[in-house]
Amino acid sequence: MKLLITGGGGFVGSRLARALLARGTLAGQRIERLVLTDIAPPPVDLLADARVEARTGPLLAQTEALRTEAFDGVFHLASAVSGECEADFELGLRSNLDSTRALLDALRANVGAGGKVARLVFSSSVAVFGLDPSVPLPKLVADDTLPLPQTSYGTQKLVCEHLISDYTRKGYIDGRAARLMTVTVRPGRPNGAASSFFSGIIREPLAGVESVCPVSPDVSHPMTSPARTVDGLIAVYEASREAFGGRAALNLPALNVRVSDMLDALEEVAGPKVRALVRFERDERIAGIVANWPAGATAERAARLGLHPHENFADIIRQYIADCAALPNAAETLKGMS
Amino acid sequence: MKLLITGGGGFVGSRLARALLARGTLAGQRIERLVLTDIAPPPVDLLADARVEARTGPLLAQTEALRTEAFDGVFHLASAVSGECEADFELGLRSNLDSTRALLDALRANVGAGGKVARLVFSSSVAVFGLDPSVPLPKLVADDTLPLPQTSYGTQKLVCEHLISDYTRKGYIDGRAARLMTVTVRPGRPNGAASSFFSGIIREPLAGVESVCPVSPDVSHPMTSPARTVDGLIAVYEASREAFGGRAALNLPALNVRVSDMLDALEEVAGPKVRALVRFERDERIAGIVANWPAGATAERAARLGLHPHENFADIIRQYIADCAALPNAAETLKGMS
Repeated sequence: MKLLITGGGGFVGSRLARALLARGTLAGQRIERLVLTDIAPPPVDLLADARVEARTGPLLAQTEALRTEAFDGVFHLASAVSGECEADFELGLRSNLDSTRALLDALRANVGAGGKVARLVFSSSVAVFGLDPSVPLPKLVADDTLPLPQTSYGTQKLVCEHLISDYTRKGYIDGRAARLMTVTVRPGRPNGAASSFFSGIIREPLAGVESVCPVSPDVSHPMTSPARTVDGLIAVYEASREAFGGRAALNLPALNVRVSDMLDALEEVAGPKVRALVRFERDERIAGIVANWPAGATAERAARLGLHPHENFADIIRQYIADCAALPNAAETLKGMS
Repeated sequence: MKLLITGGGGFVGSRLARALLARGTLAGQRIERLVLTDIAPPPVDLLADARVEARTGPLLAQTEALRTEAFDGVFHLASAVSGECEADFELGLRSNLDSTRALLDALRANVGAGGKVARLVFSSSVAVFGLDPSVPLPKLVADDTLPLPQTSYGTQKLVCEHLISDYTRKGYIDGRAARLMTVTVRPGRPNGAASSFFSGIIREPLAGVESVCPVSPDVSHPMTSPARTVDGLIAVYEASREAFGGRAALNLPALNVRVSDMLDALEEVAGPKVRALVRFERDERIAGIVANWPAGATAERAARLGLHPHENFADIIRQYIADCAALPNAAETLKGMS
């Protein structure tokens, strides 16, 4: 089978690519070819695999060619992140909305030309949920909670959920939208996401670097790890339509955790000196965005697919440390623990 | 003030234009200019008003010019109808999604060039609600019911609701989306809407013509009249942001009525011979679409704006008869009552 991962060079995309290559099969079929599109090239280990073909550049510029290229399956992960979309409205519309529409129309063109219907998994986001003054936001957002996004990123994700549902209903794709929870701990440097600090307050102290938390310790949020996110995307791909249950998007599992719980876990795993590297300094812009986010999520439909959240945040930190230990710059990345 | 009505030559649009011209003011300002865009010219009485400027052609072709034209307010009603969108997927995307996006971007360009923020009322639809297998559909859909559209038309309306909310949040427009209930009795000929028969089973018998009802008599649906719809659009325009309450779309009021209730009302108003002109002949395509629609709606937020549904369907029929009586072809249109 031939698969496409958009955003295949990114944080989740490259991990998904590794997981798929390691499995060798998906939904019972052998993976012959794995095309990774992204604005930057994927990590070298992926490029070294003979099954991988990397295509570098904006997705939107590549969709015209995709109109005549058949894929069995697509993981559509490419996206500008929330902070970027707030700072640059047109970037968000182009990267998240126009690119998705063009991708869907390319897959539709394939079907129109007699090609097979591609299965498509879309990485939506918990950011579709938010507090609109007209409707109370439940403490825990469920699969069927009314999404009222309060960011451009969340709006664009929600719009894509509905387009994917309709293209699926029409038989142009076999689409499934899964809402990713906030994925921690992201390695590397802070990115433009408003949720970037959820990783920073763990990653920086582990590296022996001070980190600023821009929200209060009692802020709660639904979290998950990169590995569980990848597991979720694969399970959603492999589910039958009946098991997926309708065309509406589902929530992937989350551990609902407060910032103070995260720091307790950090102390448990890495000691009090590491925890002490986090200081609180309120950032009104970030705090304002986060105040409109849900405090937690449930994931009933995902549970029926056998997907479950982590039991505690220390496990998520330990997974990050284990991932880092395998990297060449492990000493630097985990300097705080020495 | 200068106003734009997209779809201003249409059924609701031309009635809204007449109502605005008769009032002379909107939100306390004098209406100096009323631009009507539509694929066909508006009725002659509108063209005869010196304040009216008609622009004929697809909205999408007109949006480039709108980028440098200032409007105080916009009623965005232009839309391909549900049946058309099901039959021609690209038409729906172009007419309902791309045109709205281009209109919003034109208004945004005005603001970017230092112009004022236009107020925009969008005619969304009860068609945003539908039965997805993963979530039960409540008997009555409320303002905050989860919309899971089951048609391309409903999907496109919902997508536009969310885009309008986000453009509003960013300060590019002052947008308000109001979900129109099924508007009856539409004059003229059946159109491509799957809901067309809701008008046909009243309009045709009143004209002495047989009509076929494609669904069973116990099908229930939220209905309103053109006049109440126009009242609703104007009230939503005139509401303060606080009174509108958030950026989420609201339901306009509906009378929740069964097909059998509609026919009882027809008999009450026009007699048993007229009612007898309706026969039931199930159309699986139409019945299938209608089975995924809500049986009724509530409209709490609209009620707080002073908007209320009709109390009975006979009033809706009487309004239609009164409207027809004013037309030159009244004798023909109401021949069944003679």
